[in-house]
Amino acid sequence: MLTLASDFGTPYPAAMKGVVLDRLGEDTTLVDVGHDFPRQDVRTAAFWLRETLPYFPPAVHLAVVDPGVGTDRAALAVRVGDHALVGPDNGLLLPPARVLAEQQDADIEVFDVAYDAPESTTFHGRDVFAPVAAEVHEVGVDAMARLDDLTRLDEDDYVDLAFSEPTVERDGGATTVTGEVLVIDDFGNTITNVPGEVLGDADEAVVEGLTAPIVEAFADVSRGDRLLTVGSHGYVECDVNHGRGDKAFGLTLGDEVRFSF
Amino acid sequence: MLTLASDFGTPYPAAMKGVVLDRLGEDTTLVDVGHDFPRQDVRTAAFWLRETLPYFPPAVHLAVVDPGVGTDRAALAVRVGDHALVGPDNGLLLPPARVLAEQQDADIEVFDVAYDAPESTTFHGRDVFAPVAAEVHEVGVDAMARLDDLTRLDEDDYVDLAFSEPTVERDGGATTVTGEVLVIDDFGNTITNVPGEVLGDADEAVVEGLTAPIVEAFADVSRGDRLLTVGSHGYVECDVNHGRGDKAFGLTLGDEVRFSF
Amino acid sequence: MLTLASDFGTPYPAAMKGVVLDRLGEDTTLVDVGHDFPRQDVRTAAFWLRETLPYFPPAVHLAVVDPGVGTDRAALAVRVGDHALVGPDNGLLLPPARVLAEQQDADIEVFDVAYDAPESTTFHGRDVFAPVAAEVHEVGVDAMARLDDLTRLDEDDYVDLAFSEPTVERDGGATTVTGEVLVIDDFGNTITNVPGEVLGDADEAVVEGLTAPIVEAFADVSRGDRLLTVGSHGYVECDVNHGRGDKAFGLTLGDEVRFSF
Repeated sequence: MLTLASDFGTPYPAAMKGVVLDRLGEDTTLVDVGHDFPRQDVRTAAFWLRETLPYFPPAVHLAVVDPGVGTDRAALAVRVGDHALVGPDNGLLLPPARVLAEQQDADIEVFDVAYDAPESTTFHGRDVFAPVAAEVHEVGVDAMARLDDLTRLDEDDYVDLAFSEPTVERDGGATTVTGEVLVIDDFGNTITNVPGEVLGDADEAVVEGLTAPIVEAFADVSRGDRLLTVGSHGYVECDVNHGRGDKAFGLTLGDEVRFSF
Repeated sequence: MLTLASDFGTPYPAAMKGVVLDRLGEDTTLVDVGHDFPRQDVRTAAFWLRETLPYFPPAVHLAVVDPGVGTDRAALAVRVGDHALVGPDNGLLLPPARVLAEQQDADIEVFDVAYDAPESTTFHGRDVFAPVAAEVHEVGVDAMARLDDLTRLDEDDYVDLAFSEPTVERDGGATTVTGEVLVIDDFGNTITNVPGEVLGDADEAVVEGLTAPIVEAFADVSRGDRLLTVGSHGYVECDVNHGRGDKAFGLTLGDEVRFSF
Repeated sequence: MLTLASDFGTPYPAAMKGVVLDRLGEDTTLVDVGHDFPRQDVRTAAFWLRETLPYFPPAVHLAVVDPGVGTDRAALAVRVGDHALVGPDNGLLLPPARVLAEQQDADIEVFDVAYDAPESTTFHGRDVFAPVAAEVHEVGVDAMARLDDLTRLDEDDYVDLAFSEPTVERDGGATTVTGEVLVIDDFGNTITNVPGEVLGDADEAVVEGLTAPIVEAFADVSRGDRLLTVGSHGYVECDVNHGRGDKAFGLTLGDEVRFSF
């Protein structure tokens, strides 16, 4: 099985699928993780890959969000147990690789992929990464280390990407957590880097000067009201029932966000 | 085969697919009905499921538009002949179930699904409904009634959803039909609850004070002109050739709409 | 294998898939080329089909962008070597057919498809084209010419569509190329009909009064800056790194565009 993720919109992903099916045969299972990630936003795509790939059975994951396409940035193939990830060397693959490593109790092996400059300098998804993903799928994740075009890299030889950690200050009974807006989803749900357990058993918090209840379900507040909840990824979200949390809390991607409770 | 429908956007549906494929194997056929239904709009999604699912061969249909996620609303599995539907107990599954029942001359059997509160209170699509759909697929629709976690429900024990019926007044040769805007599609086509046959052989009608011709094809009027037509679902639509019918007729979802002819 | 392309948005393509799978069985491989092509824009869809279909192994390609639906425009099936294309007679299928013909060194055979007027006059994708594509898939591309409902057409008996060619004027060392904006993609990348090789080894060009560098990669210019590059399809694009080229150059679909260098 092969999953595909990109910021390509339509119809570029279809060309990648054509390349893969042409090489592996039409019975190969392809699953889209998504192709409308915010354009050239490596962090957001890495976040969603981290949240999504662990639910899949062993697979080759082709992921291309690639602001440096056409420059001399390297191409990577990463092995984590029964899973492989293929994409650009810009940090995109590492957050999902770490979660898969933890889930599978496996090591992360990172390989540089040698490739000839393709005719198109702007569509490495089709001309570089899809062929590599197909090649890895063909030989099998177990055997990928033996491919001639792969060279094992040390930890310092590729780009890593880590999400920031929030800081927690306690002053008597009062707690202040300073985090960051990691991702805003299609619906305005504003996902921070604050793990849900930090909230303890607080009922409400002040965020950006606004008091909002901490609830389990959107429907626990009235339509149009602000809420804080722990999303499916385990982080605190600033949301609105039937509305956009980012607008209601005045937050945008990368903003510092402070919770007091 | 398993179909998937939701209002989740990207990339949440991929996690549901991962869960299903992890359990059933990667050869399971998955088909997306769509994941960009208007958010938390159970009626619109129910309408499209009703219009779409009857074209599929026997399948398990996983459908999640779920404003009550995280509350104590029940989870349902519905059997209709060779088809099964799995989703929240908010009426979503009943309109498609009724059309499948008529098509197959089969009964509708509704089951409550017992489930443990999952870790995430906001992503039952992944944590509750996808596993149930996979389970039903695994044992087969024929055998689903024997699953331990399913309990048959009487008609009064689940939420139903019915679309409203238009009223028709005839006064001599003049007819006035008062209906409702059921759905507005991506392109502004404004679908009412008025069955096409109500129009008889009228050539034009007055809608919201505007006279528009009743035609068979968009191309029967000039670019930018208003038209009334009977859509692929059998209902009267208020449309514009190369434009948005909702804007041109001043209609929004749920509006009362009156046709005089 | 069967690919699907349309301007239908959601969820109309699912009904087409249901029809195909109901006839061919659920093991049939379906791949979406895309369903959010600009509505009723035959030229843009034809461009993308031309750029995408050659990457696929032999397949039946179902493509429906059909402003004339419900009128008496014909339905076509086209054979090119191991590939078949099915869609409306409005030129949509010919640009991809020509590229496939060149790629495969094969002839283009065009057939008229006899069909009964379906119940719905507005959804021939589901009621006419999907059944025809399934039929062609069932008998095989090799044998499609023998189908009773197909009649071979001469070149003058169907609608063709060709993209315009740019004009090149040379005056001493100065070159002026007058082309057209063929397509603007989801990200504002503005694709012209000017083949990349026309630029020779120029480093920059004046476009619409604006000087922009000719580069290999978006990242070769600063964030927000204009650039000209040869896209993955081989044509000159007017783009912006992390921005919309159409806005920055003041270009819209079909505009004449002049490059001086």
